[in-house]
Amino acid sequence: MSHEESTGMMNRRMPLGKDSEPMAMTVETLARLFDAEVRGDATRIITGVQPLDVAGPQEITFLADKGNFHHLRSCKAGAIILGYRDAASLNLDEISASLILVEDAHSAIIEVLDKFRPARPRAQIGISEEAYVSTSAKIGKNTNIYPGAYVGDNVVIGSDSDIYPSVYIGPTCRLGNNVTLHPGVVLYSKVILGNRVTIHASSVLGGDGFGYRRIDGRYQKVPHLGGVRVEDDVEIGSCTTVDRAMISETIVGEGTKLDNQVVIAHNCQLGRHNAFAAHVGLAGSVTTGDHVVLAGQVGIADHTHLGEGCTVGGKSGVTKNIPDGETHFGIPAQPIADATKFLIALRKLPELRSKIRELELRITYLEDKPDTATEKQHTSRPAA
Amino acid sequence: MSHEESTGMMNRRMPLGKDSEPMAMTVETLARLFDAEVRGDATRIITGVQPLDVAGPQEITFLADKGNFHHLRSCKAGAIILGYRDAASLNLDEISASLILVEDAHSAIIEVLDKFRPARPRAQIGISEEAYVSTSAKIGKNTNIYPGAYVGDNVVIGSDSDIYPSVYIGPTCRLGNNVTLHPGVVLYSKVILGNRVTIHASSVLGGDGFGYRRIDGRYQKVPHLGGVRVEDDVEIGSCTTVDRAMISETIVGEGTKLDNQVVIAHNCQLGRHNAFAAHVGLAGSVTTGDHVVLAGQVGIADHTHLGEGCTVGGKSGVTKNIPDGETHFGIPAQPIADATKFLIALRKLPELRSKIRELELRITYLEDKPDTATEKQHTSRPAA
Amino acid sequence: MSHEESTGMMNRRMPLGKDSEPMAMTVETLARLFDAEVRGDATRIITGVQPLDVAGPQEITFLADKGNFHHLRSCKAGAIILGYRDAASLNLDEISASLILVEDAHSAIIEVLDKFRPARPRAQIGISEEAYVSTSAKIGKNTNIYPGAYVGDNVVIGSDSDIYPSVYIGPTCRLGNNVTLHPGVVLYSKVILGNRVTIHASSVLGGDGFGYRRIDGRYQKVPHLGGVRVEDDVEIGSCTTVDRAMISETIVGEGTKLDNQVVIAHNCQLGRHNAFAAHVGLAGSVTTGDHVVLAGQVGIADHTHLGEGCTVGGKSGVTKNIPDGETHFGIPAQPIADATKFLIALRKLPELRSKIRELELRITYLEDKPDTATEKQHTSRPAA
Repeated sequence: MSHEESTGMMNRRMPLGKDSEPMAMTVETLARLFDAEVRGDATRIITGVQPLDVAGPQEITFLADKGNFHHLRSCKAGAIILGYRDAASLNLDEISASLILVEDAHSAIIEVLDKFRPARPRAQIGISEEAYVSTSAKIGKNTNIYPGAYVGDNVVIGSDSDIYPSVYIGPTCRLGNNVTLHPGVVLYSKVILGNRVTIHASSVLGGDGFGYRRIDGRYQKVPHLGGVRVEDDVEIGSCTTVDRAMISETIVGEGTKLDNQVVIAHNCQLGRHNAFAAHVGLAGSVTTGDHVVLAGQVGIADHTHLGEGCTVGGKSGVTKNIPDGETHFGIPAQPIADATKFLIALRKLPELRSKIRELELRITYLEDKPDTATEKQHTSRPAA
Repeated sequence: MSHEESTGMMNRRMPLGKDSEPMAMTVETLARLFDAEVRGDATRIITGVQPLDVAGPQEITFLADKGNFHHLRSCKAGAIILGYRDAASLNLDEISASLILVEDAHSAIIEVLDKFRPARPRAQIGISEEAYVSTSAKIGKNTNIYPGAYVGDNVVIGSDSDIYPSVYIGPTCRLGNNVTLHPGVVLYSKVILGNRVTIHASSVLGGDGFGYRRIDGRYQKVPHLGGVRVEDDVEIGSCTTVDRAMISETIVGEGTKLDNQVVIAHNCQLGRHNAFAAHVGLAGSVTTGDHVVLAGQVGIADHTHLGEGCTVGGKSGVTKNIPDGETHFGIPAQPIADATKFLIALRKLPELRSKIRELELRITYLEDKPDTATEKQHTSRPAA
Repeated sequence: MSHEESTGMMNRRMPLGKDSEPMAMTVETLARLFDAEVRGDATRIITGVQPLDVAGPQEITFLADKGNFHHLRSCKAGAIILGYRDAASLNLDEISASLILVEDAHSAIIEVLDKFRPARPRAQIGISEEAYVSTSAKIGKNTNIYPGAYVGDNVVIGSDSDIYPSVYIGPTCRLGNNVTLHPGVVLYSKVILGNRVTIHASSVLGGDGFGYRRIDGRYQKVPHLGGVRVEDDVEIGSCTTVDRAMISETIVGEGTKLDNQVVIAHNCQLGRHNAFAAHVGLAGSVTTGDHVVLAGQVGIADHTHLGEGCTVGGKSGVTKNIPDGETHFGIPAQPIADATKFLIALRKLPELRSKIRELELRITYLEDKPDTATEKQHTSRPAA
């Protein structure tokens, strides 16, 4: 039942964008992406990608995880991408699908996905009459400001960008080209975004840092006059928060990727091409080199430095600087070799206690033993 | 001071819903819910529920927690629900309140709350003229779209649903009947919600999964063409994020409840009637059976399976599959019996060190002791 | 390129507030804040604060961290605040900046920041015509309701408050004076805020508590009829959630500060002047005294009490009440002295294992040693 039928109400209806057109490619075209051999019908038309147990005759799928091998027999896909080695170990006689044999099926399917990624023909809505845009804002060509978005005074936005509904862009923010702010993103004032920056829904950049002075038992707010700078090609997940600096800037370096619900506190300065998983939290003034990787739910104490190329394992708590290239783990975090040795020692702890009880008995026995040869009677040695 | 008096400004004022009417029931009516005995005046009128130290003469309260027993004497409630056993151990002579004696006071008060739960007479606002609704969207009868909400192209929404202000529903989403999306909820495109689904404020469903390929030191985004499917009777808390699948769907099974600030990564498939507490994080492709319970701040590594009916204790980090019905705890998580033994061993660790120092002294003493009366020469003690 | 040039579209353009005017003070005026000595030109005009490596001739900076001393020589700031003691140890001859010598440079710069904090001349927009405000709402004088904000029935808002875009205030909420709700904040119904309360973007107060009864394997929602009360001078970060009580109220005490992405569950009652860092999570019915400090990513089990003035270290999991004034740490948390002893013992665990192996060898040696004087030949030392 359409809206018109159900309510007969009028409201602000407008064309809001276009669905992507379905694409179609032959198996041969797809195989050529990898210079790959095709077994079976190379002329089949493929219009999409689906998992092994869902794909139909016009869809391509892939087999990379041994846990899925049992789905192969019942698979109805038109084409399957799989590894040479896996192919050698499987009985493929009864498979009707066209097969594309590659080095690495998982990598290959990602390339195929890229092909089928709808070109996302961006909507051409321009600056919606239903958006709230300051007269002093400057907005580049081919940029969409959706209904319900808010653009403050003296904001500058580049070209080819999408500012979705309920986004708030505070005064004096400057955004590059090809920026995407998903619905509900909030930029406080003085936030600077580079080119090709994507920020997912409900994330907040530029909130005041969590800094107070305690005076006579009450917290007095430390003013935060700095800003936030996000460099080119950064992607930030949903419900992530990046606070502004006290003075100067909180920085997210070029190409860095932050997952959902990450916390970046005031005055942090992240290097380039970092990747932080969900629920990671950085306290104030943490600095990182390039290519740092933090697994989920890691916490970093304030003023810590994470060296270039270092990695921290999930749920770790880092309290000391990490040298370049090292992998650390644990609470508190330590080099992975120590942490592993440590975990092994921990696992053996109950066993260690038994051993100590045994040793004590043996010592007691020795202590109790008469120490001259003249004694005749021998007591038995204590059991462990 | 009303708005009109204070500012004289015009703005879009509209009736936005109704307050719930106060309800009234006699103590007897309430007692009948439990086939319970009333001590004292059963005709008293009760109009609400309050805690022991706040309730007044027209209100009912309950006594379940021994920590509150001392409030009993000063309690001014019109009626008190309490357990038979607790009643037997208390001096109730001076209590003026009517008493309802039940098996389990905590369960009983929840049923009473249910009675007093305002029927929430849903507002009848239909599709607000101040909402942004695509002409291609289809919206069922008796569904409210509040001002400032955004409904994209080809969206289908069932009947009797509430879409609150600043909600964003992306193109091609499909929602069942009796769905509630609280303010600021964001559904990216291709999100499917069943019937009686409630999503609390600022949660985000369908954001791209955190998946990248690292090529020449830079992260290249893995396309995420899949969707999110939320089955019937699911409730999701505030600021929780559920990412879309790379291909296929991220699934939240029927009746499952997610608390606030939970992270469900791409391609996770949750069973039915799971319950995850706040700050729980699931990495990609985690699967769960039915009736899985995760306590607060638990993290689950990618591609892990949590068996039917299993439970994980607070703050644990799960890196391996958990068999059906087991309870695990710790970082890394292990079966609760092992984890408990382990914690006990840990607690005794300082004691263990003392013991070892003691044993060493005793050994040294034995070593140093001349072992025969006649022996002149002493053999050297073995090196460690 | 301005918006007009680029698109020629019409939309709702309005003056949305004013930039802050630049301020100017002499070095002498600033020094007088601390009764401080000036070395160099005291008449220089200062217009802002910047870090050591960025500040220019009209800006003041500070030197507090030894890690920055090497920036001193190349510093171009007009004035530098530094500590007496640091000054004594540095060669300041070649420094052209005016110097202000103080007891504590870090404290001093915060006071200077306070001076330069733009007075934030609040915009005078009143109640925007683009806001959705119920006719039954009462709004105090000099309060701004920004475009896209939503104010429900029977809401009362005090004076001098700012309600930013996309904020949702549910029916019957009551807000004091000088309240700031940043963009996207959601208050469900029955939330009460005191005076001078600031809530940062996308935070949610008053969502239903995570409470269910499990009946026949399905979760049945426990009704939450209570509210949330936030007392005077509270500041709450971004993407933080505070759930409503089942009955009665969830309380955030006077002057308490919550960082980003904090979870406060139903029925918690926080004392005054608490400070909780990011990613802290409190389960239901936790109570705290005054002046409680929780470091990042701490979790507190339900019904726990945290005594006045207690502190919990980062990433701890608290499962038992903490007495007044104590500092606890660990999973599960224990008093800091025990936790420290414990961590040291843990660190020595591999060493302990070696020691035990050594002791065993020595015992075996003693056991194997012939225990009579008559024996001539000595047995060889036991192999490891």
